[in-house]
Amino acid sequence: MSQSPHSLRQMIRAKQHKGATAGLAPSFVQVNVVVIPEQYAYHFLQLCQANPKPCPLIAVSDVGGYTFPEIARDADIRTDIPAYQIYEKGQLCETRHDVVDIWQDDFVTFLLGCSFSFEQALLDNGITLRHHDQGKNVSMYETNLPLKSAGVFGGNMVVSMRPMRAHDAIKAIQITTAMPRVHGAPIHLGSPELIGISHIEQPDYGDAVTINHDELPVFWACGVTAMVAVKAAKLPLAITHSPGCMLITDLYNHQLFY
Amino acid sequence: MSQSPHSLRQMIRAKQHKGATAGLAPSFVQVNVVVIPEQYAYHFLQLCQANPKPCPLIAVSDVGGYTFPEIARDADIRTDIPAYQIYEKGQLCETRHDVVDIWQDDFVTFLLGCSFSFEQALLDNGITLRHHDQGKNVSMYETNLPLKSAGVFGGNMVVSMRPMRAHDAIKAIQITTAMPRVHGAPIHLGSPELIGISHIEQPDYGDAVTINHDELPVFWACGVTAMVAVKAAKLPLAITHSPGCMLITDLYNHQLFY
Repeated sequence: MSQSPHSLRQMIRAKQHKGATAGLAPSFVQVNVVVIPEQYAYHFLQLCQANPKPCPLIAVSDVGGYTFPEIARDADIRTDIPAYQIYEKGQLCETRHDVVDIWQDDFVTFLLGCSFSFEQALLDNGITLRHHDQGKNVSMYETNLPLKSAGVFGGNMVVSMRPMRAHDAIKAIQITTAMPRVHGAPIHLGSPELIGISHIEQPDYGDAVTINHDELPVFWACGVTAMVAVKAAKLPLAITHSPGCMLITDLYNHQLFY
Repeated sequence: MSQSPHSLRQMIRAKQHKGATAGLAPSFVQVNVVVIPEQYAYHFLQLCQANPKPCPLIAVSDVGGYTFPEIARDADIRTDIPAYQIYEKGQLCETRHDVVDIWQDDFVTFLLGCSFSFEQALLDNGITLRHHDQGKNVSMYETNLPLKSAGVFGGNMVVSMRPMRAHDAIKAIQITTAMPRVHGAPIHLGSPELIGISHIEQPDYGDAVTINHDELPVFWACGVTAMVAVKAAKLPLAITHSPGCMLITDLYNHQLFY
């Protein structure tokens, strides 16, 4: 029996779960977390607005706020994520399990949709996922597709790739079109070279998976894009979730349709 | 200035237009026409019900009826199509410009959706069509995808193919998903061999078009499927429109969305 998002957040807060959240409370939306000083918040908001496929904004906090009562009851952003990464001037300097003692009154928190939600919708429609079947992380790649830049934020899009037969690829496009708040429809399928990926067998993030001869690689915009943009902006201080260690919300995945 | 469907039907009835209808009244739905004896009508209806992508039924007449007042005001199926094909026992024995003198009281008429409608929707969304640009008919192919058979009707699906870059292919899937009454979403894209097409440069119907190296062939179920199934059933008598010479209705293409 799967636990509720609320009880999982309580466990995480108590440091009883410090790792990846994939597969936990699978009916519920998990989100990417970006925390940056107010000074850069407007530009980051612009980045999300201009690039909704890689950076689908689910919620943004008030300045200094660390709660999202409407989508995660009693949650505290400072403690309810299993692992955080602390960046100083674009350099990862620390991974930790809470950020209470380094919290600043000028922090703004952004929650961005994550592919876990649409993956669940694909599974619920009978589409299997190779990285699940092979017990791996999804393959992710840097592309040559430029973001629309906003202030200090810019760079290229990062994509995730799932191999599928054409019939399933078409169905996956139909399903994810209806979920724009979690990356929406794929941005490419077929030849990886056309979006600047030279070595499909060597992902830049995550793991390589088998692509069968009767399958097409299908590419979705990926939330890692935002992490890379934040890192490249070399802010004095920025906090993100650690890859795969997401905030679990109270929103059902099906609430993200349309 | 384009003419109204009604005035075009009057012109066709007067034999002032005896050819293809592509591009005439482009905002309006054109349909495939199948006329068969009542004895086979139930099986044909079953074929359409079981295979809605190749055989999307827009309307069916009463026995002996040749009018469709709700979708084509004052139209007469016996005279308002530019060219008809007459089949006896599956053999094309005559092409003519009206069927008044061979009409039978036991005829039932089926109107099936046609790709012209979704092609207009693609054009309206900025997707160019290679066969238009090259002044050709769309490429069509027999596949190894079996229909769900119904009584005397069966066989394999015929598909039409339009080459597109991945970005446009994804958009085309999104647009045509919303138009199930005119073939809906593609049934395949990418490798033609996977659906039994060995020579993409040699279509079974229509013309070959250029496929660029950065494009995928995208395949839709095609109304020719129904014509081939009717022919293969070797009915004593069957009438269809001549390829490309459709019935022009009063329905707007946008009325077919969803």
